[in-house]
Amino acid sequence: MMQTAALSYFESHERDFVSQLIEFVKIPSVSTDPLRKDDVLHAAQHLAQKLTSIGIENVQVFPTARHPIVYGEHMHAGAEQPTILIYGHYDVQPEDPVELWNTPAFEPTIKDNKLIARGASDMKGQIFASIAAVESIMKTAPFPVNIKFILEGEEEIGSINFKKFLEDHKSLLKSDIALNPDAGMIDKDTPTIVYGLRGLSYFEIRVYGPERDLHSGTYGGVIHNPAQVLCDLISKMHDENGRITLPGFYDRVKPLSDKERRELARHHQNEEYYCEQTGVSKLWGEKGYTPVELTGARPTLEVNGFLSGFTGEGSKTIIPSKAMAKISTRLVPDQKPEEVRDQLEAFLKANAPSTVRWELDLISHGSPSISDINLPETKALVKALKEVWGVEPIYKREGGSISVVADMQEVLGIDSVLTGFGLPDDRIHSPNEKLDLPTWHKGVQSLIHFFYNAKRD
Amino acid sequence: MMQTAALSYFESHERDFVSQLIEFVKIPSVSTDPLRKDDVLHAAQHLAQKLTSIGIENVQVFPTARHPIVYGEHMHAGAEQPTILIYGHYDVQPEDPVELWNTPAFEPTIKDNKLIARGASDMKGQIFASIAAVESIMKTAPFPVNIKFILEGEEEIGSINFKKFLEDHKSLLKSDIALNPDAGMIDKDTPTIVYGLRGLSYFEIRVYGPERDLHSGTYGGVIHNPAQVLCDLISKMHDENGRITLPGFYDRVKPLSDKERRELARHHQNEEYYCEQTGVSKLWGEKGYTPVELTGARPTLEVNGFLSGFTGEGSKTIIPSKAMAKISTRLVPDQKPEEVRDQLEAFLKANAPSTVRWELDLISHGSPSISDINLPETKALVKALKEVWGVEPIYKREGGSISVVADMQEVLGIDSVLTGFGLPDDRIHSPNEKLDLPTWHKGVQSLIHFFYNAKRD
Repeated sequence: MMQTAALSYFESHERDFVSQLIEFVKIPSVSTDPLRKDDVLHAAQHLAQKLTSIGIENVQVFPTARHPIVYGEHMHAGAEQPTILIYGHYDVQPEDPVELWNTPAFEPTIKDNKLIARGASDMKGQIFASIAAVESIMKTAPFPVNIKFILEGEEEIGSINFKKFLEDHKSLLKSDIALNPDAGMIDKDTPTIVYGLRGLSYFEIRVYGPERDLHSGTYGGVIHNPAQVLCDLISKMHDENGRITLPGFYDRVKPLSDKERRELARHHQNEEYYCEQTGVSKLWGEKGYTPVELTGARPTLEVNGFLSGFTGEGSKTIIPSKAMAKISTRLVPDQKPEEVRDQLEAFLKANAPSTVRWELDLISHGSPSISDINLPETKALVKALKEVWGVEPIYKREGGSISVVADMQEVLGIDSVLTGFGLPDDRIHSPNEKLDLPTWHKGVQSLIHFFYNAKRD
Repeated sequence: MMQTAALSYFESHERDFVSQLIEFVKIPSVSTDPLRKDDVLHAAQHLAQKLTSIGIENVQVFPTARHPIVYGEHMHAGAEQPTILIYGHYDVQPEDPVELWNTPAFEPTIKDNKLIARGASDMKGQIFASIAAVESIMKTAPFPVNIKFILEGEEEIGSINFKKFLEDHKSLLKSDIALNPDAGMIDKDTPTIVYGLRGLSYFEIRVYGPERDLHSGTYGGVIHNPAQVLCDLISKMHDENGRITLPGFYDRVKPLSDKERRELARHHQNEEYYCEQTGVSKLWGEKGYTPVELTGARPTLEVNGFLSGFTGEGSKTIIPSKAMAKISTRLVPDQKPEEVRDQLEAFLKANAPSTVRWELDLISHGSPSISDINLPETKALVKALKEVWGVEPIYKREGGSISVVADMQEVLGIDSVLTGFGLPDDRIHSPNEKLDLPTWHKGVQSLIHFFYNAKRD
């Protein structure tokens, strides 16, 4: 096997790769935080240096309206070989609530073969799995296919400048398929191919009442409390069957076919599984669907945050002057994120009382997507995962949102093959995020196999 | 007139009194903030020194379980004269939101004859009005009645140790009536006597969902969002007529008599007035009552604060692990604050879904009260206010809560005569709290008259 040398190279250099990953996750590249703009840039430059150092060519850090995109290529396999565009995002979620971390979020710690740090799993570890696989091949043989890297710094804030970048660099990015390792596994023994992703639209709603916080004794009884109004509005966003009540919200939702429901029924994630993963005693959701259908193939609306009035220790007897909620919806084909904004606005117009003023902002959005599972590169990945794990991978519709998949379909005309080596209990977006290093090790091995399997005869 | 000398003394020393008030409001005696415990103590000691310096005797700073109570007396008018217990609280509300203050909350500023600072109106200014009146009399003549001071540091956190202090010091505090200048005026031309006060019960509700914040893509669809649950619960706490739905909440509420409704109808605070005072365009409240009835004589339930999940700039796609709300009710005779706790608990038991866990804390509480308006000292105050303002005072049921009035009725067997020289636009409990100095000046004058009027022939 051609790949034996690369696999050996990886084995003997794994400690170095993990050390490099540790240096990388130390950079607090929190894209949503304006105070960390320089850290995000630092992470981009760090990656560009790494790619250059292993022999990737034409490495560039492209500025965008907010955070840069790192590009690089290695195009020496010949025109008859496919070009694979390796996607990644080097930005991470905020670390708050800070006080719930057992070790500081940006001081990586290894414990029980797990690397604990913000971004370890989502997705700096996945980027380094790709880089480790690419380096291991490049150091030991001519690369079997053509590759390009596109690494962005805005995924956690909705990839806001990614689509425009694709539009502006269509020929530079021309490829046959994208490899996107930002999807996880359903458990550590079951390699997973994701073929469907939910879209996202993320909003902030602000309700304004009196011009200042009021004494609740002096004024309580005649003032419509904006926190109460916002609670009323949020409460009305679901009906008694757990369905979302925004007007027209379900109009474009594709019903699940019987065939797809049968395939999704193969997944073992039942109520018990989700309860164990999350610590809840009972699930809740739209009536008439299984947990796997609900998290992968049905749209949702969530309160991500709510703030109003006095929230410190003790008591303060006020009617708050305003209330704010962060509300996001996860979308499924063929819902359109921009239309959901109109639906939410129509809902607020119909339901907000005239006693208050309100404002609605669409903060970020991305489209849902479905990928073709019969492409040759998808089959190459299936084979690679089988070679390493010894079992058939499972096909999954993922509940998360990777809007870049829809963007690449639309602008570059290419599908994505989605995988990844994160696990359900990695606590991504939560305190104490971790990466399981033995699983990561298998991930790098399977990516080495993948690049060889993708070579056309 | 005997009081002429005292009035002249006050006129010629007013600048000094205002300077002393300014020094006093500089002390950030925020009773709810554990970090300011020493500042609260400092304010108590500052008051004790002031009382001692003007000749008040037996001045003591009594420790309680949290913040001290300052006592002092001047008992030289003879047994045939009434003993008046002068009440005040030297603690203040927190200054947040700090960023909305035009000048720092604890750096007093005088602008357009208004003293701007936290506590200027509620109620350090009112305490100093009493002290200025007492000092002006003491410096110029034998005091016409017997007086005692009781100044506490926990009013803004529900006077939690006050009742026990009364019980432990019944004979020390023995008096005929309490003077409580913690009630305001309905406008600057209309001196006001408050005969009814609402009670309070203040709660924190915490709803717990998953054991950590979850990725809303991975888990959205099967997890009952605790922020949504808390919104549902809060939304259900009022019905479509603005009535509170806690079981049994209205059972003990005394209906307003036709006579009392006629008296309250004399007040000019209509919808327009409240809109102008608060900046809202339209009022809201329980159907079937006027604004004056709603704010003074009907119970309410308010959301004072709500916190859940991510509330910073930008977006974070999580299902929060918990949600918290501060909820308070204002109570009217004969509602009992402890019973409201049971009612809220019963409401939560009946309405909270089994998908979440919840906790309920009663943070503070105080009883509603009604005082007799035909007492001789009330008549002495009515006469004093007429002498200074030249108009008949108005009788009011106040929306705020002064639980000490009910406590003194219950433990000491004395009614309170309630007045005060704060104005509706003083922004108490809000940023940029102020005290109108010309009104305060009239307040001191009328308290000088009051002590002379209260002297029995």
